[in-house]
Amino acid sequence: MLFDRVAIIGLGLIGGSLARALKRASLCASVIGYGRRDAALRQAVRDGVIDHYSLDVREAVEGADVVVLATPLSTTENLMRAMNEGLKPGCIITDVGSAKGVVVAAARNALADRLPFFVPAHPIAGTEQSGVEASFAELFEDHVVIITPLAETDRDAGEKIAEMWRGVGAEVVELDVEHHDEVLAATSHLPHVLVYTLIDCLARMQDKQEIFDYAAGGFADFTRVASSSPEMWRDICLANSASLLAVLDRFEQHLERARQAIAAGEGDRLAEIFSRAKRARDEFARSRGR
Amino acid sequence: MLFDRVAIIGLGLIGGSLARALKRASLCASVIGYGRRDAALRQAVRDGVIDHYSLDVREAVEGADVVVLATPLSTTENLMRAMNEGLKPGCIITDVGSAKGVVVAAARNALADRLPFFVPAHPIAGTEQSGVEASFAELFEDHVVIITPLAETDRDAGEKIAEMWRGVGAEVVELDVEHHDEVLAATSHLPHVLVYTLIDCLARMQDKQEIFDYAAGGFADFTRVASSSPEMWRDICLANSASLLAVLDRFEQHLERARQAIAAGEGDRLAEIFSRAKRARDEFARSRGR
Repeated sequence: MLFDRVAIIGLGLIGGSLARALKRASLCASVIGYGRRDAALRQAVRDGVIDHYSLDVREAVEGADVVVLATPLSTTENLMRAMNEGLKPGCIITDVGSAKGVVVAAARNALADRLPFFVPAHPIAGTEQSGVEASFAELFEDHVVIITPLAETDRDAGEKIAEMWRGVGAEVVELDVEHHDEVLAATSHLPHVLVYTLIDCLARMQDKQEIFDYAAGGFADFTRVASSSPEMWRDICLANSASLLAVLDRFEQHLERARQAIAAGEGDRLAEIFSRAKRARDEFARSRGR
Repeated sequence: MLFDRVAIIGLGLIGGSLARALKRASLCASVIGYGRRDAALRQAVRDGVIDHYSLDVREAVEGADVVVLATPLSTTENLMRAMNEGLKPGCIITDVGSAKGVVVAAARNALADRLPFFVPAHPIAGTEQSGVEASFAELFEDHVVIITPLAETDRDAGEKIAEMWRGVGAEVVELDVEHHDEVLAATSHLPHVLVYTLIDCLARMQDKQEIFDYAAGGFADFTRVASSSPEMWRDICLANSASLLAVLDRFEQHLERARQAIAAGEGDRLAEIFSRAKRARDEFARSRGR
């Protein structure tokens, strides 16, 4: 067995799915959950998602070999401070945050000499659902987990976290922190901002009801990400604001060129943009088999 | 049987699917297809999609009770002029274009005293695929077809086209031309422009390959519309440029507010935008049962 005791801090879609997957793969002897909703945690024990729970984070991490932070990004530093005294020597701390720079800064501030045992990680998996009720053990199968080790990161600690993720079916890759944050700003954070903003814009137009009534199937796909948790995405956008604003700038320059082509009736320029995009998208879809 | 002979001008995804659906529902005695690709049309006859074909549009419409225009918008007026002399008296002309103002203008220019027999229509159905190879008879089932009749439109002609669409499983609604074009600009044309532009923007970044490598499942959904035909979407964007640019302006104002909230770290304002969007999107999804 890879670990004896794993503590999962925040039992939402990701935390709950990891708990289920760890138990299904027998990667640890027991999983303890920390959260704020007593009833949900009690239900999670009854459902076998976790073995125990605590509403006190310091108590939750006691005796754990691994602590997995799976809460909204804005809570990271306070939780690290609150758990620090309860951690046993050599305990590995990892996380699942969608932005890594802010988590690493929190760890530098809060974990002090435990920093080498902090392994920043990000499973590229999820659905537009939230909460432990939506969790399932197969969530990470054939998905990528990005680990962004620091110069200080203990090599064995990093390898154990990689083993954990491979054990639940994921493929593990390494990126540096800054590169992770740039790449995710482009393919995940910016698309969420665009879709949330467009839906809000349309919902405030006068003929709102008709607009949604006559939306096609493509609209349902295009807007699916806007059913994700607003609080989680607020945290991600603020946590990764520098990379997000940089790629938003770049996008707006491209959008301005598309607008000019439309306004000027320049069909060739417009077809050129659309054709390049279709080629890139088709290539992406082929590489994913969908 | 509703019609004796139906001519489908342009045998792509929509034209091909309508041909299949008409034949399956026995709504007409024969379907003739017009197109430019001889081999594809010959194959379509072999596959039973159509009964006959012609590479000459005037010949294709001869003797037809109904002519359905299903070609890119930029070809509409020329095709109407080319077919005009071949139409039998009382022949109903209809179309499937995603923008209606431009098609109505073309009809006013090209159809002269046949205008009352022109019924502008738009089936809100499709996939990101193109071509008769991707067509299927069930495409229109439980989808909406918007008819945008003119003051001059013959009532019986309009009712026959509505019957045709109901006969292949669609729900028929009426909107006026301007309203159609505003609504579709918001839910279909603008999303296509945003996604094509974003993908082109990302594909031209230096770390392009990694960007797509680490994209999550949400990205595949969000970007699916960018696999649609660039030529078709160029035509749609130019054909509906006034409504499209108006909703793009509005969107950019909202985007600017979101940017300011991110740059200023105003979490409450950002969460407010995202929460309103999530409520609207969840409501939309519930109304569609997906």
